[in-house]
Amino acid sequence: MKKSFRYASRVPNKNLHIDHDDFREFEPFDGETDLVPRSAQPGVDALSVVGVDMRKDVNAAQHCTGEYVTNLLVVRRGQQFIIDVSFSRPVTSQDDFQLEFLIGTDPAANKETLVVVNFGNHSGAAWAGQIVEARDTVVSLGVTASSKAIVGLYRMYVAVAMGNGMQRTEKDPNTNFYLLFNPWKPDDDVFYPDEAGRSEYVLNSTGLIYMGTPDQVTERGWVYGQFEEGILDACIYIMDACRMPIQNRGDVVKMVRTASALVNSQDDNGVLIGNWSDDFSMGTPPTTWTGSASILQKYHASGAPVSFAQCWVYAGVLNTFLRCLGIPSRVVTNFNSAHDNTGNLKTELIFKPDGSPDRHKTRDSIWNYHCWNEAFMKRGDLPPKYSGWQVVDATPQETNDGYFRCGPAPVIAIRDGELCHPFDCGFVFAEVNSDLIHMKSDKYGNMTPFKVDTTYVGKLLYTKSRSGWGPEDITGTYKHPEGSPADQQTMALAEQFGCSRDRSNVPAAKLSIQISAQAGYVGEPLRVSVTFYNQSEAMKLVKVHMEISPTYYTGVVASDPLKVEDFRLDLDAFQSSIKVFELSPQEYVSHLGSNSSLEVTVTGQTDDVEVSEVKTIALKLPPLNITLSGQPQVNRDMYIMVSFTNTMGFPLTGAKLAMEGAGLLETQVYSYRTIPPMGQISRKVGFRPTKPGLQTLLVVLDCDNLPDMTAMVEVKVVP
Amino acid sequence: MKKSFRYASRVPNKNLHIDHDDFREFEPFDGETDLVPRSAQPGVDALSVVGVDMRKDVNAAQHCTGEYVTNLLVVRRGQQFIIDVSFSRPVTSQDDFQLEFLIGTDPAANKETLVVVNFGNHSGAAWAGQIVEARDTVVSLGVTASSKAIVGLYRMYVAVAMGNGMQRTEKDPNTNFYLLFNPWKPDDDVFYPDEAGRSEYVLNSTGLIYMGTPDQVTERGWVYGQFEEGILDACIYIMDACRMPIQNRGDVVKMVRTASALVNSQDDNGVLIGNWSDDFSMGTPPTTWTGSASILQKYHASGAPVSFAQCWVYAGVLNTFLRCLGIPSRVVTNFNSAHDNTGNLKTELIFKPDGSPDRHKTRDSIWNYHCWNEAFMKRGDLPPKYSGWQVVDATPQETNDGYFRCGPAPVIAIRDGELCHPFDCGFVFAEVNSDLIHMKSDKYGNMTPFKVDTTYVGKLLYTKSRSGWGPEDITGTYKHPEGSPADQQTMALAEQFGCSRDRSNVPAAKLSIQISAQAGYVGEPLRVSVTFYNQSEAMKLVKVHMEISPTYYTGVVASDPLKVEDFRLDLDAFQSSIKVFELSPQEYVSHLGSNSSLEVTVTGQTDDVEVSEVKTIALKLPPLNITLSGQPQVNRDMYIMVSFTNTMGFPLTGAKLAMEGAGLLETQVYSYRTIPPMGQISRKVGFRPTKPGLQTLLVVLDCDNLPDMTAMVEVKVVP
Repeated sequence: MKKSFRYASRVPNKNLHIDHDDFREFEPFDGETDLVPRSAQPGVDALSVVGVDMRKDVNAAQHCTGEYVTNLLVVRRGQQFIIDVSFSRPVTSQDDFQLEFLIGTDPAANKETLVVVNFGNHSGAAWAGQIVEARDTVVSLGVTASSKAIVGLYRMYVAVAMGNGMQRTEKDPNTNFYLLFNPWKPDDDVFYPDEAGRSEYVLNSTGLIYMGTPDQVTERGWVYGQFEEGILDACIYIMDACRMPIQNRGDVVKMVRTASALVNSQDDNGVLIGNWSDDFSMGTPPTTWTGSASILQKYHASGAPVSFAQCWVYAGVLNTFLRCLGIPSRVVTNFNSAHDNTGNLKTELIFKPDGSPDRHKTRDSIWNYHCWNEAFMKRGDLPPKYSGWQVVDATPQETNDGYFRCGPAPVIAIRDGELCHPFDCGFVFAEVNSDLIHMKSDKYGNMTPFKVDTTYVGKLLYTKSRSGWGPEDITGTYKHPEGSPADQQTMALAEQFGCSRDRSNVPAAKLSIQISAQAGYVGEPLRVSVTFYNQSEAMKLVKVHMEISPTYYTGVVASDPLKVEDFRLDLDAFQSSIKVFELSPQEYVSHLGSNSSLEVTVTGQTDDVEVSEVKTIALKLPPLNITLSGQPQVNRDMYIMVSFTNTMGFPLTGAKLAMEGAGLLETQVYSYRTIPPMGQISRKVGFRPTKPGLQTLLVVLDCDNLPDMTAMVEVKVVP
Repeated sequence: MKKSFRYASRVPNKNLHIDHDDFREFEPFDGETDLVPRSAQPGVDALSVVGVDMRKDVNAAQHCTGEYVTNLLVVRRGQQFIIDVSFSRPVTSQDDFQLEFLIGTDPAANKETLVVVNFGNHSGAAWAGQIVEARDTVVSLGVTASSKAIVGLYRMYVAVAMGNGMQRTEKDPNTNFYLLFNPWKPDDDVFYPDEAGRSEYVLNSTGLIYMGTPDQVTERGWVYGQFEEGILDACIYIMDACRMPIQNRGDVVKMVRTASALVNSQDDNGVLIGNWSDDFSMGTPPTTWTGSASILQKYHASGAPVSFAQCWVYAGVLNTFLRCLGIPSRVVTNFNSAHDNTGNLKTELIFKPDGSPDRHKTRDSIWNYHCWNEAFMKRGDLPPKYSGWQVVDATPQETNDGYFRCGPAPVIAIRDGELCHPFDCGFVFAEVNSDLIHMKSDKYGNMTPFKVDTTYVGKLLYTKSRSGWGPEDITGTYKHPEGSPADQQTMALAEQFGCSRDRSNVPAAKLSIQISAQAGYVGEPLRVSVTFYNQSEAMKLVKVHMEISPTYYTGVVASDPLKVEDFRLDLDAFQSSIKVFELSPQEYVSHLGSNSSLEVTVTGQTDDVEVSEVKTIALKLPPLNITLSGQPQVNRDMYIMVSFTNTMGFPLTGAKLAMEGAGLLETQVYSYRTIPPMGQISRKVGFRPTKPGLQTLLVVLDCDNLPDMTAMVEVKVVP
């Protein structure tokens, strides 16, 4: 290795697996030549350390860290924890000893990676020390880490001042401990002001992620599993893997920004590889995962990115990372999310002269839904207004200029159009506020807008409520009511900061089209009704184009249309007419691809106007049946019975049945080659709960041709 | 290649080397089945294109692009350029034709990567078109690209509307042209308000980079060479190499941010590999480069990062990139630059109890100088106040959280402590405003500050002046006067935005130390005088520690001290005393390493105070002699004669003599194994000026044991 003269010393960026020795066990004071320790008080036995007890018993409950499955102590910063040190004799006021806390390679006092805590005459240390109790030779020491302290895995030493040097305890991995963010303490930048919030956003290890369309919201469970064995280490490993400087790891803003980059593998060998194709043969389909734990464990064990993710997987894993380290967080779903644009506010759908969508020229897509995270924090780098929930997005987006990271962006800055602060506010603003512009192109290739829809994008934002298993509508935190003075002010401000809007003046057309559909189960006939209404004072001949295509949640159609109808319709002044289209199961089931949605596009042209309407229909999935039996008690036998009947009239292939429950059952996956029509599968699995309290079991049935059937069940485990 | 359903179509990110066809030559209108073009006017010959002339002759002068060495047209956006189209017959008002401009793969009208310019009845295009003159069959067309247009290499087609479709010219690389930013036009975000500034910051292809120490400023020439053959392509290639979306390439903020990341190879296979060691055997030593052109040409040819760079090389190449694309820019040197800290405002020097510097515990370093760039632009993403010069830094810094990019950060935001706007203001603020804190550690390892110097860091900021070859002091644009009310307000605001300062209250010591040195030439004896002044009312016994060490410009010492003196000094009340130390050539020359600087550290301790002072001395380098002969005229023979005598009393090894002059001479390098003491080398090189005007020749002599001797000479070339 060439010596570099760039640094006085390299910036330490590794927390786990520190192999070198920290100290010589006896370190003589400067100028001392005798290498044998000498008692500090002549005539009194030298004080030495006999044992150290990290007092997990009392500390874990006080610090709300009892659920972490680890032998080591887990505590939070800004809050006292207790360490018992047993000495060779009772301690007197003449004795001088200190605790030394070290993190990362090459710790240094002035980088706060080496912290000395005194209990004697010295003072001025960043961490407070206090002798809580002395019982004979055992002293209970209270230590309070600074509320800005670096978060991660610390090593600890007890050092006793001898007459001629410092005598330290041996390196002992059992006295290592984890220091986390502390949402319970007002001094901490991650302070969350109420217990219900902390219970949900920090301590809840299972959640719901919303999907589907704004009209047909569906949900799937996700086991965050932030307390499971090895997850805390995996989260610290993520920061080591990207060489995040240790000295930055107490700063929640930098931590969250790093995490948003590291959960995707785009430019830094991060956790997850995205895959939006139909071919997941080289890994696990995004729809098969039941939670984050197995992903993070796999990443930490191999050091290589895990295959495969789509947006909810990125969001699920990022949520685990955040909650695991003590940062309040939640997964948010934005319905009709404008995607991969460049921060301008135009999303354009292009139609051919005949009224059919021009799939080649249309470059933009609107995702039916997109999941990201919010993390709650004080933004010490910004004016106070911007503290609170922040958008963080781990899904890589090509157009954010090669930053495969996004956020933290203050939600309130998005709502108010104040896009001039870091990070990436303009980008998120466009995701919820883009205008949807319908364009038609003439024969020369010139394009003219004929409809501008300012309400389509960012229709609804949902997150799991704190009180139960339902959604909380948080649209109002991102957007003022459409058209309100506050909304107008927001849009004007956003334009000032470079978000360009479409300025074309498209008058409201005197013809309206409405699409509605009863979303049935996959395998049932689909009925779509389209209402045409002539709002003009003249009779109109309407040339109609209608097509139905299978579509992904990214808004990209999976194949050619399954049904196309072109017809003409006479409509008297102020008259309406309803047309019903039916799609039989035979017409659509084999074309669904890996997503059970259909896009209906209807265009109507008269002599003077053109109107188009697009609607995505998410089909319902058949139910999984779950029965629990046994005694819901820690360490007693329980059983989960999952059964499923294929009522769909076509065979399901490549089925994977996966189940997982934090504190109940580690991820289990069972494969079935085919489930024939009316075929039934059932599976009984035994397990023993490891933790008391309300726990959740999640089951997923994922087939090649029908992904993503999920079910959840709760069980109250007694101690 | 697996199909991905993530995008309606992938985001285009490639500008050069587009191989596919753009159009079918004849494209029938929708619904037309006849594939043979039919004249638009029955009975009149179909109009067809015979030839296209890009009118380099008139356009280049108008657009100030005459210096670019390329066969293609180079023009600027927001300003009319002329294209002559020869048709098969005179054009009538019945004829309908258009110009089509395409950039990147898969161009699209709604992404502004396909722009149609009409000269007939159509309107509403983003680029303006005008028939300037029609002479028989030749029509001169005036085209004005939008002042927000994408910058890069465009393809052009002439399309004529036939009766049944569009007939286009063939793909012709000779009608490709470059569109650049336009600092001459007020509508452009890079508008620079005066001609002297544009001459320097856009058009000057040679510059000066300041180095050394605040007391002994040195300089080296740098040939930016932004107009040389292949440089414009290399700059566009840089953006292709990092897959910057084409549609973002009209946005100067995004462009500059991308460039800051791409000039270093840290995370994206960028242009330059940094090397701050003493071993450059695997590439070119940073001190041997004479300019950017050979680096950029090498990078474009190989597609691989070029070895090696230090800060001024990064800054030189980034400056070339910016000026080449038309963004006003300059290289700035910050003397005493706080480095690789985390955005806090503390840089700590640690001293042992005996007064000697503790090189192990000192983790921070202050660079004697650090070079970065400023780019001039309107910040459309921020409130208007922040437009103007922006800091951009391409030197990779470990602690900026894995962003190996920095800026654009508004200089005015740095000056006023308004650090809550993008990008990286807090980081730059710390580089110019850190406090230098001298700490001593006691025997327990506890550290106490004994001196806080708030004026050391960011002592001086220099850039080349617009009017000539001297420096312009721009310290006042970065910092209010130390201690002024405005400065206090700045510091208070910066702290509010998370820049933590040292709050220790260290009283002014009643003992002062001043170090001064006559900077002689390398090889001469060095005399350092140290003045001690006892400001107290009592006699003091001062324990003094003095040491001199060779040092790099990064503030890192190269070896153990060359001279150490410890002594005691009696000082009466209000008495001063001067001590002189001499270092003979034999004591230092063989230890200088790749940088000719020495660091002097003096510590004085009395019974009640400790004081220390550090000073870096940059030694002078022996001169290179240059003589020009021949006729300074385009395409006539000229000669440069370089001679050098080694007056240094020790042999110079591994010497490389390099010379370069934009418009005069491409980079030439000659090697000499050894130059013995009093040995002389001389080299006469012939060349032929290619451009008229005031041109500059730069010569560098770089030896393993004495780098970086430079000289420049100007020559006025007549046409």
